[in-house]
Amino acid sequence: MKRIGIMTSGGDAPGMNAAVRAVTRKAEHEGLEAYGINYGFAGLLAGDIFRIDSRTADDIINRGGTILYSARFPEFAEEPVQLKGVEQLKKFGIDAIVVIGGDGSYHGALRLNEHGFNAMGLPGTIDNDIPYTDFTIGFDSALNTAVHAMDNLRDTAASHERTFVVEVMGRNAGDIAMWAAVASAAEDVIIPEKDFDVAEVAAKLKSSRARGQKHAIIVLAEGVMTAAEFADKLKPFGDFQLRATTIGHVQRGGVPTAFDRVLASRMGSYAVELLMEGKGGLAIGIQNNKLVTHNMLDLFDSKHEPEMDVYKVAKELAF
Amino acid sequence: MKRIGIMTSGGDAPGMNAAVRAVTRKAEHEGLEAYGINYGFAGLLAGDIFRIDSRTADDIINRGGTILYSARFPEFAEEPVQLKGVEQLKKFGIDAIVVIGGDGSYHGALRLNEHGFNAMGLPGTIDNDIPYTDFTIGFDSALNTAVHAMDNLRDTAASHERTFVVEVMGRNAGDIAMWAAVASAAEDVIIPEKDFDVAEVAAKLKSSRARGQKHAIIVLAEGVMTAAEFADKLKPFGDFQLRATTIGHVQRGGVPTAFDRVLASRMGSYAVELLMEGKGGLAIGIQNNKLVTHNMLDLFDSKHEPEMDVYKVAKELAF
Amino acid sequence: MKRIGIMTSGGDAPGMNAAVRAVTRKAEHEGLEAYGINYGFAGLLAGDIFRIDSRTADDIINRGGTILYSARFPEFAEEPVQLKGVEQLKKFGIDAIVVIGGDGSYHGALRLNEHGFNAMGLPGTIDNDIPYTDFTIGFDSALNTAVHAMDNLRDTAASHERTFVVEVMGRNAGDIAMWAAVASAAEDVIIPEKDFDVAEVAAKLKSSRARGQKHAIIVLAEGVMTAAEFADKLKPFGDFQLRATTIGHVQRGGVPTAFDRVLASRMGSYAVELLMEGKGGLAIGIQNNKLVTHNMLDLFDSKHEPEMDVYKVAKELAF
Amino acid sequence: MKRIGIMTSGGDAPGMNAAVRAVTRKAEHEGLEAYGINYGFAGLLAGDIFRIDSRTADDIINRGGTILYSARFPEFAEEPVQLKGVEQLKKFGIDAIVVIGGDGSYHGALRLNEHGFNAMGLPGTIDNDIPYTDFTIGFDSALNTAVHAMDNLRDTAASHERTFVVEVMGRNAGDIAMWAAVASAAEDVIIPEKDFDVAEVAAKLKSSRARGQKHAIIVLAEGVMTAAEFADKLKPFGDFQLRATTIGHVQRGGVPTAFDRVLASRMGSYAVELLMEGKGGLAIGIQNNKLVTHNMLDLFDSKHEPEMDVYKVAKELAF
Repeated sequence: MKRIGIMTSGGDAPGMNAAVRAVTRKAEHEGLEAYGINYGFAGLLAGDIFRIDSRTADDIINRGGTILYSARFPEFAEEPVQLKGVEQLKKFGIDAIVVIGGDGSYHGALRLNEHGFNAMGLPGTIDNDIPYTDFTIGFDSALNTAVHAMDNLRDTAASHERTFVVEVMGRNAGDIAMWAAVASAAEDVIIPEKDFDVAEVAAKLKSSRARGQKHAIIVLAEGVMTAAEFADKLKPFGDFQLRATTIGHVQRGGVPTAFDRVLASRMGSYAVELLMEGKGGLAIGIQNNKLVTHNMLDLFDSKHEPEMDVYKVAKELAF
Repeated sequence: MKRIGIMTSGGDAPGMNAAVRAVTRKAEHEGLEAYGINYGFAGLLAGDIFRIDSRTADDIINRGGTILYSARFPEFAEEPVQLKGVEQLKKFGIDAIVVIGGDGSYHGALRLNEHGFNAMGLPGTIDNDIPYTDFTIGFDSALNTAVHAMDNLRDTAASHERTFVVEVMGRNAGDIAMWAAVASAAEDVIIPEKDFDVAEVAAKLKSSRARGQKHAIIVLAEGVMTAAEFADKLKPFGDFQLRATTIGHVQRGGVPTAFDRVLASRMGSYAVELLMEGKGGLAIGIQNNKLVTHNMLDLFDSKHEPEMDVYKVAKELAF
Repeated sequence: MKRIGIMTSGGDAPGMNAAVRAVTRKAEHEGLEAYGINYGFAGLLAGDIFRIDSRTADDIINRGGTILYSARFPEFAEEPVQLKGVEQLKKFGIDAIVVIGGDGSYHGALRLNEHGFNAMGLPGTIDNDIPYTDFTIGFDSALNTAVHAMDNLRDTAASHERTFVVEVMGRNAGDIAMWAAVASAAEDVIIPEKDFDVAEVAAKLKSSRARGQKHAIIVLAEGVMTAAEFADKLKPFGDFQLRATTIGHVQRGGVPTAFDRVLASRMGSYAVELLMEGKGGLAIGIQNNKLVTHNMLDLFDSKHEPEMDVYKVAKELAF
Repeated sequence: MKRIGIMTSGGDAPGMNAAVRAVTRKAEHEGLEAYGINYGFAGLLAGDIFRIDSRTADDIINRGGTILYSARFPEFAEEPVQLKGVEQLKKFGIDAIVVIGGDGSYHGALRLNEHGFNAMGLPGTIDNDIPYTDFTIGFDSALNTAVHAMDNLRDTAASHERTFVVEVMGRNAGDIAMWAAVASAAEDVIIPEKDFDVAEVAAKLKSSRARGQKHAIIVLAEGVMTAAEFADKLKPFGDFQLRATTIGHVQRGGVPTAFDRVLASRMGSYAVELLMEGKGGLAIGIQNNKLVTHNMLDLFDSKHEPEMDVYKVAKELAF
C-alpha cells in the first residue's frame, strides 16, 4: 500500500479536519502518501482528488467544517457509479481509503471495500447516533455550542422569568439534548427515545414556580418535534411566559473542542495503522475509552444506544 | 441626596449588571447608599426594593442578564400609578433614581423626574437604537455573539456550499446586522434603513459563484422580515442551496464584552456624579468617545442614526 | 440518613460547583437535606457550615471555582483535630459526607469514615492525576483552556516564525500536556512520565524548519521543569526564535465545559445514591465510561496511569 | 495607480488579517490589484511579494496573527536599503503601499513615501499606544483576552481567597491594564502613566479584607515592572496570599473581536480611497468615532494619551 485516500461525507462536524490531518500526517509518518478527495463520493466520481501533505493539513486542526467539502450523492448506491469511482482510485494510484462521516457514508465505503479497496470508516457527526461507538467526532463540540447558547438563554430567562423551549440537533438521537440538559441545569428534557407527557412537564414547571423559581429551560431534541410545536402543546396548561427557540446550524460549525480534536486524531491515526495491516471494511469507534473496530456490516443492523444514566441524572437533578 | 435607586427596565442586555455595580460602588465611594428596585417600574410600585451594597454587586460584572430582573409595565403611563411609585420611593427614603433600559424606560424615568425625583437614564439595549448615543450597553456583546455564530455558520456553509440567510436582532435598527456583516465578511446585508432588491442580491450571489466561491452568508436585520420570508423571496432566482437561520435570543444574554463592561461602568459612575450635582431628567450617552447628556425629552422626538460608513464598507467589501 | 455534608478541598477545579449542585439536588430529590461546609476541613473544624438548598445551588453549574471555598488544612492529620470535626458534624446533625477534591482530600475523608461517618470522595482536580478514574472533574475544562491559549499562541508563532515553549499545569502528571499537544498540533511534547533528549527535540525542530515550517509549539508539563529552564536547555542547539510562556493559573478557573458539568453531575448524584445504600469510604471514578467505586485505601497505594496512546499520537503526528 | 502593496510590520495583532482583506477587496472593488508583501520591510527587500486576490483574502477575517508574516528589519533605516526596496516595488509594478503596524513601521512607510510611493499607515498593535487614534487594530481583542483570563483567575482567587497580581501587556502604555481593570472589577490597577505607592495598595487590600472580601486582583501594566517584582514589593506589607501571574503572549493572538474586525475593515477600505485620491504619507486613525488622517511626521513628535476617565473609574469603583 502506498497511497491512502481521505474523504468527508454527510453532514459536516467539528473535528473532521483534525481527522483529515491525522490521516495525512500518520500516512507520511509511515512513509505513505495521502490524497484528499473533495465532495465525498461525488468528488470521487468526478476525480476531484489532490495530493494532501503535512503542510496543507497543518493549519486545520482547529477549524470547523471540512476542508474536503462534503456532499450528498445517493447515486453511489448504483454499481456502475461505484465502478467509475473505482476507476478514479486506480487512476490516482490510491490503494485504500478512509471515509469520515455518518452512518450513510459507511455504505459507500463498504461498496469500495467490496470492490477491493480496503476502506475504513470514522464516525464523524454531531448527532452521536452511530452504533458501536460511545462518541462520534463532533458531538462534544456541538454539545458545548448548545450548552454555551443555553447559558446565554438562561440569563434572559432569569431576567424576564420566562420559560424557554430550546430545540437542539441530533436527528433521531437524544444525545445532544440529554447531555445539554444536564450541563445547562435544564428544568426538563424531551428526547425521542423516551415518551413524555406534556401535562407532566407543565406540572413540573408549576411546582418549580411554586418553590420560587420563575424561569425555566426545557431542552427538546429535534427528533421529537419543533420547539414551536412543543410550545403550542404546553401553552394550554398555564402562563409560563413561553419562548420557543432553535439553536440551529451553529451547532454544526465552530472551533472543535480539545476532546473532539484528540478523538479525531486518535481515530485517524488508528485507521492508517489498520490499513497498513491489510484490514478493511471496518468502522472505528471508541468504546469504554478504547479504540475499537466493528465490521461495517454489523452497524447497519444495529442502533445507537444513548447513555441513559445521563438522562436519569438530567431528570432527577431537574425535579 | 443620600439614597439612589437603580432599576433595569425593558429587554435585558449584557452589561446591565456592570452598570448596576457601577452605580452601587460609585454611590458608596461618595458616601451614598444604593437601593436596587426589582422588576423595573412594576417592582417600584410593589415596593420590591432592597439595599444593594458592594458585596452584592461584586460578582456580577461578568454576568449577562440583570440581577434586578426586568418587566414590562405599561400601566406606569397613568398618573395615579406613578404617584404610587413616588410613595414607594419616599417610603424607602430614595432621593434620586437611575434607570437602565431602552427608549421606553426613559418615559417612566421622566415621569419620576417630573414628580421631583432626579432621574438619569442609561441606554441599555442590544439594539443600539437609542438616539444621542453612538453605542448602547449590550450592543457590542450581542454583536460579538452574532459574529461568533456566523463564524460557525461559515464553516458549514463553506463545507456544503450553501447560502445562509441569517436573521439577527435589532428591532427596527440595522446596527447589529451591518456591523455583523462587516465582521463576518458576509456576502450581503439587508437592513431596514436601506431599500433592497432581491434580484440584485441574487445577481451578486451568482457573480460570486461564477468567480468560484460557492457559499455565502446574507445577514438580515429582523426589522426587515424573517429569514424564512427572505429565503422564500430569493428562491425563485436560482439554486443557491438556501438555508434560513435565526440566531435568536442567545444574542440577548451571555458574558458581556470588555467594551460593554467599561461603557456601563463609566456611564453608571457618571450618572451618580450628575445626580450629586443635582441634575435630573437626563439621558447619558457616549458620542465621539465622550460621555454626554441630553434632555430625555429631546430623545423622544429623535431617531437613532446608524453609522452608514459601516454599511458602505459592508457592501463594498462584499461585492 | 437525613443530612449530607458537602465540601471542596484542595485546589479548585471547574466543575466542582456542578458537583455541589448535583449532591444538593439529588439529596433533595431523595428527601434528604444537604449542608455546605466552607473551606474544606478547616471550615469543618470551625463549624462554617450552612444549609444549602436547590435555590442556592441553582445558578452555579456554569461557574468556575467553588462556592464552598477551599483551603489547605494539614492539621486534619491529627486525631484530636479530627474529633473536633466529628463534633461539628454531630452538632449539625450531618450523617454522611461528600468530599470533592484531590488525592490528599481523600485522606481526610477516610478519617471521617473511620470515625463512623460514611464519606464518599469525588475526584476534583484539573491535573487528572487520581488513580482509578480515567478523568477527573476539571481536567477537560483546563485542557480546553490550555488548548485555546495555544491556538492564540500559534497565531503569533506563525506570524513571527517563532518557537514557543508552553508550560501547562498538571503537577506530576503529563495528562494536560499530552492531550493539549495532540489538540493543538504541537510540534513536540515533554511529560514527566517519559524521558526526553533535548538534542532530539532540537533535531525535530530543525527538520521541521527544513521542510518549510518555521514556527513551532513545544508543550511542556510543569512536572518536568519550567518553560524558561527548558528554553535555556534548547537554546545552545540552534536559533529557534525561542519564547518561553506559562499558561498559568487561568487553567484552574473559568466556565466548565459540558463534559465536566455532566461528569460532575453524574458523580455527585451517584455519591448520594451510594450513601443512601449505607456505603462509605469509597472513591468514585469513571472508568471505561462507567461510574465505578474503589476503596479509598486502595488509591493511596496506586498511581494514576495516563493514556499513553494519546502520547503516542502526539509524537507520531508531530513528527 | 493600478497596484497597491500591503504589508504587516512590527508585532502581530488580531485584526491585521481583516485589514489585509479590506485593502485587497476594496482594491478589487475599485478595479485595482493588490499585492501582498511578506515579512514586512525585510520581505520587500527580498522581493517576497505575491498577487493577493479576494479568494486568498476570503477566509482570513476571523484569524489572528497575520498571513503576511511580520519581521523586524531595522536595516531599513539606511537609504541604500530603502532604494533596493523601491526597486522591488517598481519591479512588481506597485504604485502605492499600505503598511499595517506600530509606530515604528510608520518610519519605513514614510521613507517609501519620500521615494515617491504614496504610503498609508494603519495602526496595528494590541498596545493602543499610537498617537492620533483612540483605538488601534488589535487592542479590543487583546483586552478581551486579558479580561477573559481575569474572569478565570477571579474564580480561583475567590475560591482560595488569594490576591493575584496580574501582568498584562501594553509596552509603555497602560491602556490594556486600565480598561481590563474596569472590566474585571479589579481591586487595583498600576500603570506607567501614574505614580503609585505600594503602601497605599496594601492599605486598600487590607480595608477590602476588613470589609469581608478576602480575595483581590491587581492589574499591572508590563511597562511598570513584572508581576513577580510587584508581588515582592507588596509582600512585606501583609499576608495577602499573593500569586503573581503573567497573561503573556496569548494576548497577541486569537480570533479578533467584532470591533477589531470592523475597525480594520473600515481603515483598510479608507486607505485605498485616500491612495486613489493621490494622497500619501498619512497615518489613519479613529478619533471621536470618525476615521481621520494625520501626517505621519506629526506622529513621531507626539505621544499617545490614554483615556484617563477610564483610569478614574477603575480606581473609584475599586475603592
